[in-house]
Amino acid sequence: MSGKRPVVIDLRFARESVVSALRSAFPDRPVIDMGDAANAERDLTDAEFAVVWKPDPALFRRATGLRAIFSGGAGVDHILSAYELPDLPIVRFVDRSLTDRMSEWVIWQCLHHLRNGIAYASQQRERVWHEIAEQPEARDVTVGVMGLGVLGADAVRKLKVMGFDVIGWSRRAKSIEGLETFDAANLEAFLGRTDILVGLLPLTDDTRGIYDRALYSRLRRTGPLGGPIFLNAGRGGSQNETELIACLADGTLKAASLDVFEKEPLDPESPLWSMPNVIVTPHAAAASDVRALFRHVEAQIARLESGLPLEFVVDRVSGY
Amino acid sequence: MSGKRPVVIDLRFARESVVSALRSAFPDRPVIDMGDAANAERDLTDAEFAVVWKPDPALFRRATGLRAIFSGGAGVDHILSAYELPDLPIVRFVDRSLTDRMSEWVIWQCLHHLRNGIAYASQQRERVWHEIAEQPEARDVTVGVMGLGVLGADAVRKLKVMGFDVIGWSRRAKSIEGLETFDAANLEAFLGRTDILVGLLPLTDDTRGIYDRALYSRLRRTGPLGGPIFLNAGRGGSQNETELIACLADGTLKAASLDVFEKEPLDPESPLWSMPNVIVTPHAAAASDVRALFRHVEAQIARLESGLPLEFVVDRVSGY
Repeated sequence: MSGKRPVVIDLRFARESVVSALRSAFPDRPVIDMGDAANAERDLTDAEFAVVWKPDPALFRRATGLRAIFSGGAGVDHILSAYELPDLPIVRFVDRSLTDRMSEWVIWQCLHHLRNGIAYASQQRERVWHEIAEQPEARDVTVGVMGLGVLGADAVRKLKVMGFDVIGWSRRAKSIEGLETFDAANLEAFLGRTDILVGLLPLTDDTRGIYDRALYSRLRRTGPLGGPIFLNAGRGGSQNETELIACLADGTLKAASLDVFEKEPLDPESPLWSMPNVIVTPHAAAASDVRALFRHVEAQIARLESGLPLEFVVDRVSGY
Repeated sequence: MSGKRPVVIDLRFARESVVSALRSAFPDRPVIDMGDAANAERDLTDAEFAVVWKPDPALFRRATGLRAIFSGGAGVDHILSAYELPDLPIVRFVDRSLTDRMSEWVIWQCLHHLRNGIAYASQQRERVWHEIAEQPEARDVTVGVMGLGVLGADAVRKLKVMGFDVIGWSRRAKSIEGLETFDAANLEAFLGRTDILVGLLPLTDDTRGIYDRALYSRLRRTGPLGGPIFLNAGRGGSQNETELIACLADGTLKAASLDVFEKEPLDPESPLWSMPNVIVTPHAAAASDVRALFRHVEAQIARLESGLPLEFVVDRVSGY
């Protein structure tokens, strides 16, 4: 173990995935797995790094010797909202696997709506053979991606290969080769062009509740799909779910695919489960691969130990 | 009309789509629309070209002056099976729009199976919040595409961008940049590597019934999806439907997405409609856009009239 200080792991993931991944991770340093009851009262002052997802609020009070905090996912809102958060670098999880999975979900759901997946599933149940006449192709449909970080940029690239017309929005102006982008000042113009809105925003003070009736009602209503469609695979806290449900019921939105919710797990009583124009997946769009997470953490620690700066450090002011 | 000879149209498509597209097509030559009852007994000996989809068997006996026959779709089996087919060039419909639509359907259905779309839809109906642990990513899954014409090559390219491992098969060896390909002699090796089989074959004497139990049972059974999956968007005549249903019932196949059937429309009594592991779409993967079809025919006629050879002419021996 060469005298290295421990890494403390507090990941509220499926337990077996963490245990399994830890077997081959961090070979040269002690690991304190907070999922192991034997560590409940352990002294954590020697821990040098923490890898966390929705950590115990007391963790940062106990682990006073940390040099950096690694998020178990692309989002860091679960850390920034912690009590007594120390003034340490917080590192987002950026990984090819996480990015690819998110894009799979986004392209899948955009195609599902483009190709009348909900209507054809309904016809199949009724044993109805009927080709739906309104079948625009991808190039006729504008997908507007909100959030142009690593995930958004990859989704944009793949949506374009599939033929969609794509535009992008981020709070601060961003330039992406071959993409028309909009910023905070131009949100209305962006929405007015968008047939399928893809939400990939981080949860911050600026984005909490940003997807509300005012926003939904500004989406393009004259597009080829017969009404705007909303996809959210970012954070549930960004959507006003009461207004979302109302807009899906009154036709302000034609349909939605939702992987995230204000409160997770989604309440069994939520009307979203049974709305005929809604696809629900259980925050499964881009599950973190725990092995890939530990590889990423090992690589960042190695950078630090060889004198290089950490990558993917969160800007505490903007919140991502 | 400058004395040009007529084009005869016999397209068994949705009637309104043909009528609408004819309004702006073939501005410089007479059109004989066989969908118009007034033309039922018309003398057709003056017709120079025919544009057909599942034509009246008597058409070619009546239209004795034809120079070329244009298929209304990518497939030409509906023409080659006609009685008294004259020895004329038959031109396939090749079009960006047709190709893009087919690839949309293929990528959509590959992602639907990769991302557990059937299981998540079932969980949604039951209001179950449960992340399915077995979630391979696209790169873990090998998609084998049978048929490497214009449609197959485009699907291959887009499947690769989405991250899938892709291999290809065609009866005669084909070389596609960056793709491992197999030919008739190597079908078994191809199937043994394939997790998702995508059927894009034309219907010929060689491909009739090619998708049968012997073939399904040679697909890879040890892949990350828990069993092989069959997609067919080529021709229903290529699938042995009795054996397909049995293989879907006994686990030889894990699931299927079918856009084509031995007999269309699919019989309301077919078990395929209600099998929990089957997605049915009503031959809608790549509906011909009639406007695009007429543009393509006009372009080919213009080639001929300026002394250039027709493109996309069918090889009558191979049948495609």
